[in-house]
Amino acid sequence: MGDLLVVGSVALDSVKTPFGQATEALGGSATYFSFAASFFTTVRLVATVGEDFPGEHLALLKNRGVDLSGLQVSHGKTFRWVGEYGYDLNEARTLDTQLNVFADFKPSLPAPLRRTPFVFLANIAPELQLDVLRQMERPRLVALDTMNFWIEGKRDELLEVVAEVDVLVINDAEARQLAREPNLIKAARTILGLGPRSVVIKRGEHGALMASDGHFFFVPAYPLDSVFDPTGAGDTFAGGFMGYLARSDRIDAGALRRAIVYGAVMASFTVEDFSLNRLTRLRSEEIERRYAAFRDLVRVDL
Amino acid sequence: MGDLLVVGSVALDSVKTPFGQATEALGGSATYFSFAASFFTTVRLVATVGEDFPGEHLALLKNRGVDLSGLQVSHGKTFRWVGEYGYDLNEARTLDTQLNVFADFKPSLPAPLRRTPFVFLANIAPELQLDVLRQMERPRLVALDTMNFWIEGKRDELLEVVAEVDVLVINDAEARQLAREPNLIKAARTILGLGPRSVVIKRGEHGALMASDGHFFFVPAYPLDSVFDPTGAGDTFAGGFMGYLARSDRIDAGALRRAIVYGAVMASFTVEDFSLNRLTRLRSEEIERRYAAFRDLVRVDL
Repeated sequence: MGDLLVVGSVALDSVKTPFGQATEALGGSATYFSFAASFFTTVRLVATVGEDFPGEHLALLKNRGVDLSGLQVSHGKTFRWVGEYGYDLNEARTLDTQLNVFADFKPSLPAPLRRTPFVFLANIAPELQLDVLRQMERPRLVALDTMNFWIEGKRDELLEVVAEVDVLVINDAEARQLAREPNLIKAARTILGLGPRSVVIKRGEHGALMASDGHFFFVPAYPLDSVFDPTGAGDTFAGGFMGYLARSDRIDAGALRRAIVYGAVMASFTVEDFSLNRLTRLRSEEIERRYAAFRDLVRVDL
Repeated sequence: MGDLLVVGSVALDSVKTPFGQATEALGGSATYFSFAASFFTTVRLVATVGEDFPGEHLALLKNRGVDLSGLQVSHGKTFRWVGEYGYDLNEARTLDTQLNVFADFKPSLPAPLRRTPFVFLANIAPELQLDVLRQMERPRLVALDTMNFWIEGKRDELLEVVAEVDVLVINDAEARQLAREPNLIKAARTILGLGPRSVVIKRGEHGALMASDGHFFFVPAYPLDSVFDPTGAGDTFAGGFMGYLARSDRIDAGALRRAIVYGAVMASFTVEDFSLNRLTRLRSEEIERRYAAFRDLVRVDL
């Protein structure tokens, strides 16, 4: 079993969906990622929060065994995000972003963290992702997420770090934007040409696909009667994906495929409630049960 | 091996896509369906064409072994459809529809056709679908397709025939419209409550799903570098689906799943060129090779 390091954001999210709302709830890419991955392996979280960050949230992560030695408590307020979703839950409308302490985030890894074998660079500025990568000592597998904001505004920096990672984990719109190619299959191939060995493309309610040297792999989304709040689904997916790889300590094609399914499993729980609420109630047996259900969803021979 | 009857349209389509155009090319739901299904079993086509219908098109179907004894040649012109697609190939914009002889289509089945065990009621007026169904003698499996036009304008008639069929084959927008439910999973369950034992929902570039008594099955779309013209993809899908069931002469859950994959296989060829052009060049080995490739796309254990 390998350990897993994530660098990203820890935030307080205020989210409104057609089905309800949550105010200043625990959020952030590194939070969803860590919590999801904690079901599989030991996670080391690298992020920053302000002095106003509620201790109960820290306790929640600590109780899941998340190593918080890389979490800086900075002078100022915690990153806040305010967004809402319409009935098409595939896209959030951002109403407000207050970076606060996140604006000056300069991750400096404590020495013991630098040797973590599995690394996830969640969606932060590409320069910071590259800086973290430079601090790592021979990681076994590095995956990276990003977003339209960096693809547009920091393309060169992003391409530099993308060239150095093993797996890119992005959504379909981002893949098209990064590759400058509307066809998703061509876009995936173009991205592989940028350096990564694999690209994992998240497609919301349509599941996910992975492309690696000529081979494609598809997983559907779990058929849910209602998606309550999609916030954090992508980061939870990445947490399940990387968590499984770290636990199995394998990075071959078969392990990557099973990891994708675990990513989809974890994401399917997150969207069932606001914030991390569903994950905090989650039991390992439920994960394995849903993993089996995912296998049944695509089983051709009964 | 069971025979397969289809009732639907035979048309001349003029289609423009960002990649080219075709004028008065062979089209129509029953045409795509029959041609695709002809790779699996004997197909009996029930439709109407005008006196202007090119003999070469009839020859094309005949050479595939399609039984044309139920094809009426009526006084007048053949049904014509003119449409175009933008870069989002998921939806066609209809520019012109000339029903011509199709406006007075009243299918009357020759006696030998009434005992065909597998029946596909392609997208025509629900009263006609019901009328055909009444003429059949104890069919083994009946599937039905429809469209927004009938869901909106002939809802009661449609519900009447839907209640009598085994499988409904529609696209995602139609499923939501028919069930009056935005969530596709709930919509599928609602549709099963209307009578059919299974509902197959086509999702274009996102593949297809089937729901039957509590079980869901998903198949992705084949990862194509370019989709040239999606016209007929849904009918080709249905042709592969029903063709496989008829050939295997089984209607159990496993056969239905394999049939869905064959449907997706056939559709993936159709979209590679205009009209039936790709299908006319298709060889059985290619079908089996792509079926195997589809299995690999979702195989979790390598």
